[in-house]
Amino acid sequence: MTNRIKCIVSYDGTGFSGYQVQPEKRTVQRELEAALGKIHKGLEMRVSASGRTDAGVHARGQVIHFDTPLMLPEDRWTIALNSLLPADISVLHSEIAPGNFHARFDAKGKEYRYFIYRSRQRDPFRRNYAYQYPYPLDIQRIRESFPYLIGTHNFTSFCSAKTEVEDRVRTLEEIQLLEVEGGLVFRFRGNGFLYNMVRILTGTLLEIGSGDRNPDELPGILKKKDRSAAGKTAPGHGLYLWEVFY
Amino acid sequence: MTNRIKCIVSYDGTGFSGYQVQPEKRTVQRELEAALGKIHKGLEMRVSASGRTDAGVHARGQVIHFDTPLMLPEDRWTIALNSLLPADISVLHSEIAPGNFHARFDAKGKEYRYFIYRSRQRDPFRRNYAYQYPYPLDIQRIRESFPYLIGTHNFTSFCSAKTEVEDRVRTLEEIQLLEVEGGLVFRFRGNGFLYNMVRILTGTLLEIGSGDRNPDELPGILKKKDRSAAGKTAPGHGLYLWEVFY
Repeated sequence: MTNRIKCIVSYDGTGFSGYQVQPEKRTVQRELEAALGKIHKGLEMRVSASGRTDAGVHARGQVIHFDTPLMLPEDRWTIALNSLLPADISVLHSEIAPGNFHARFDAKGKEYRYFIYRSRQRDPFRRNYAYQYPYPLDIQRIRESFPYLIGTHNFTSFCSAKTEVEDRVRTLEEIQLLEVEGGLVFRFRGNGFLYNMVRILTGTLLEIGSGDRNPDELPGILKKKDRSAAGKTAPGHGLYLWEVFY
Repeated sequence: MTNRIKCIVSYDGTGFSGYQVQPEKRTVQRELEAALGKIHKGLEMRVSASGRTDAGVHARGQVIHFDTPLMLPEDRWTIALNSLLPADISVLHSEIAPGNFHARFDAKGKEYRYFIYRSRQRDPFRRNYAYQYPYPLDIQRIRESFPYLIGTHNFTSFCSAKTEVEDRVRTLEEIQLLEVEGGLVFRFRGNGFLYNMVRILTGTLLEIGSGDRNPDELPGILKKKDRSAAGKTAPGHGLYLWEVFY
């Protein structure tokens, strides 16, 4: 008999070559599986996540699941894992999930946030946690772009040319731009996101805010289904997988 | 002819063995002097700071000065230094100071801040930038302690036993405790601070807040002039040299 355990995991992406296991690389998945292996006395453990994150990308609310023969009280998994995980990963919550729960296939939506700071000189405390963009931006112009993006579209122009997934139709439910002390935060909420999609959306919206593009170009960019029609990919270190919805 | 340049410098203390040059160690002073050496084509450059900071301790507003034979416009020093400094140090401002200005001897006061976060699970994003203190605290009790500490006192009980300075009389002008999202911030403002003084004050105030000590024990602790009378030294990674006043 096994239990399926669901955990909410937060990590600072700075020191990782992304989420997914790669040979010879320090990745979040590898650290999670190593910690679980220790708890299970060397048993090889496999973890499934809601999705990958790239090198330097952070997570506030990544969701994972795994199966275990150990019958610990559900909240003990948080404590047991945190005692073995490195300081840049933390389990925030653990619970026993239904046996057919799947962190990836059951995800109904996700929220990503993208953090920007505006100071002219680089900030040592934000260098790994937000993208420095000190140039003028027309916030109103950026917000005028959102209606063109919200809704169900083929987002081929807004995903990496390397994307292997065939179906590039996704629904963006919400985009917000919040002005915070010294910077900006984009919130993107949708039913799913393609590879690099949030970073390309952010890069394109910054080009609109700086005056290099017009909001009303967006329908044409979507229609082209061509990555080269959209703007630059914003850097990974400003991006956070914020929450996964089930 | 030389110019005396004054700079405001911010650094993330995580990767440094403190401010001051030590053999074989990565320190803030060494990085500043190395960058200045490059600007001066190998000339050995010396930098004076308002004071040292320990390993792991951060600075938002450290002040330094140096003398240079180069006649750059004063704000160019910010750009020239930042192009050569590592990403965990940033010059925020530079100006030509009077030839007799001294970053240390002219300092009339300083503000330090100490950041605490209260979440039960460790936060990967705050692990190097705030002290995790998840236990109950009586904020009112901590605030009741401030009047005992504010003013001019001999702070021998609140400095490291290794302190070499003879005169341990300092004036604490202000202490504040701010409640912020997920945590607390102490602000300490005074005419000068002894070695480890802010960390020992913070550690002692946390012991008062947790109920281990009473606010009215403070006059007795000050009177003893004995480090062992006060509380624990709070960890360095929660501490920020915030501002230096001239």
